[in-house]
Amino acid sequence: MRSLVQMNLVRSTEVKDGKAKINLASTAIPDQHHSWLKDKAAAAVSELSGVEEVTVDLVEARPKELNQIEKIIAVMSGKGGVGKSLVAGLLATSFAREGKDVGILDADITGSSIPKMFGLDARPSGSETGILPVLSRSGIEIMSMNLLLPSEDEAVIWRGPLMSKAITQFWEEVLWGKLDCLIIDLPPGTGDAPLTVLQVIPISGVIDVFTPQELTEMIVKKAIKMAQKMNVRVLGVIENMSYLVLPETGKKMEIFGRSKGEEMAKASGAPLLGQLPIDPELARLCDQGEIERYSSDAVSELFTNVVAVLNGKKEG
Amino acid sequence: MRSLVQMNLVRSTEVKDGKAKINLASTAIPDQHHSWLKDKAAAAVSELSGVEEVTVDLVEARPKELNQIEKIIAVMSGKGGVGKSLVAGLLATSFAREGKDVGILDADITGSSIPKMFGLDARPSGSETGILPVLSRSGIEIMSMNLLLPSEDEAVIWRGPLMSKAITQFWEEVLWGKLDCLIIDLPPGTGDAPLTVLQVIPISGVIDVFTPQELTEMIVKKAIKMAQKMNVRVLGVIENMSYLVLPETGKKMEIFGRSKGEEMAKASGAPLLGQLPIDPELARLCDQGEIERYSSDAVSELFTNVVAVLNGKKEG
Repeated sequence: MRSLVQMNLVRSTEVKDGKAKINLASTAIPDQHHSWLKDKAAAAVSELSGVEEVTVDLVEARPKELNQIEKIIAVMSGKGGVGKSLVAGLLATSFAREGKDVGILDADITGSSIPKMFGLDARPSGSETGILPVLSRSGIEIMSMNLLLPSEDEAVIWRGPLMSKAITQFWEEVLWGKLDCLIIDLPPGTGDAPLTVLQVIPISGVIDVFTPQELTEMIVKKAIKMAQKMNVRVLGVIENMSYLVLPETGKKMEIFGRSKGEEMAKASGAPLLGQLPIDPELARLCDQGEIERYSSDAVSELFTNVVAVLNGKKEG
Repeated sequence: MRSLVQMNLVRSTEVKDGKAKINLASTAIPDQHHSWLKDKAAAAVSELSGVEEVTVDLVEARPKELNQIEKIIAVMSGKGGVGKSLVAGLLATSFAREGKDVGILDADITGSSIPKMFGLDARPSGSETGILPVLSRSGIEIMSMNLLLPSEDEAVIWRGPLMSKAITQFWEEVLWGKLDCLIIDLPPGTGDAPLTVLQVIPISGVIDVFTPQELTEMIVKKAIKMAQKMNVRVLGVIENMSYLVLPETGKKMEIFGRSKGEEMAKASGAPLLGQLPIDPELARLCDQGEIERYSSDAVSELFTNVVAVLNGKKEG
């Protein structure tokens, strides 16, 4: 459970002559929890010295007014199956381990894979004023179409405009609250979903994920061109499935072809943020919904580079 | 170069008192080639015994009226990167080797990978009446957005309606002619492109491709549900990246997790058509645009099963 402060529900506080007056946004809080919310806030404030009386008023606000998000990273790729969701999940996990407040907006409406990776099947709660993201075990806020479906393998047969609307709602009507970082997991391609994200959401930049195949290189270049055309910063590129460490010999095998990390970085005019191997252990943890238990040197290095780029300490 | 008969341009022939009269559709043939087309047809007919005089008339027809396609297979998957294009390319290659006339309609507008796999960079020719597909080395007819772009890494930043329009044009305005089989390579997901293909094109059935991850299983089920909801037959499922044969020991390693072939077949109510290993040699050939040079026992077995299902000789 996130705190009222993290959810950014506290609109104003005033203490005068021992009387405290608090305005709390009731955004996204279901009606039956309103009195609980008031009591909780009153109890917390009455513990402060000099406070004798507490009044808590609930006000309405739109999630958009309450959300305060420091950095927004969109993870993209022209091609599917290169590991966008994996990278989004690993980055979010790394932020959470550092004690940062982090969320994942799963913009892959028809092929959501984030909830499964985090072992989530709770449905988001909410009210007419907004929706609350679901929290992962390590406290990552997650919103995904799959959390809203009656069953996770239900097909979402939607044309673009509906998809764009869902993504816009995930941005405007979800109470993300205060976050250090929001990570957006995009579907493959350069169609409706990425277009909507790049147009509607004030992202800090995109990260492009690719695998060593030549094919992918071409398609990732498409994604980079899209970002450039739309004046969005490319923070960097990440090579996934770079190699497999053979279990018996410990040798690295480049099963999808020679690594193209440096070339892709050059082509995109952005730094190579990391190279992730194929790791059966990671595949296993993702299948079991336990991506948050995974750590590796390659991921740590990747995370360090991403943070450096976000803070303007690394350039391409 | 395909023959006039394969292109299905011969509309009518009449021989009376030594005089032959031929009506040829000039569909998709650029104006400057019209006289060449007439001469070619006249020459061929005048060689027949009893023909003394040949008149060739050019008539206009829409490609849709000329196309005669026996079977149409859509290769789909809810998820990207599972190998849809690879399966489409391998199946087309297998058909071509058997002497069948085969084409690939690349419906992945924003992430086309078919032309690269076949090493194609020619632009399709055509006229106001239609477009001619590009032929691969082994004579496979191919139409893809990437063949129409100024450069292959250009981004196609299109919303759904435009994408659907492009796919409809690939179906209605391309002169496929007579084909034994047309294979449609779909983009991932259950959005605009698959929706358009399933609605507009009279497909014989879909083949679903998946990889052994749990994640994929869920997402492939979405694709199968979509087909079922739209009353389209699921011909079968194909597991890709089932295993890797380790180079030094020859052992099979299931790097993405335990094979789920039989379970997926059961879940989809359709047969398991094949299981393809990860093969660095295939990755290399695809990168070099030489997929047509690849063959393996796994692919042969897959092809045999697909043909059996198409001919109604194998049921799930």
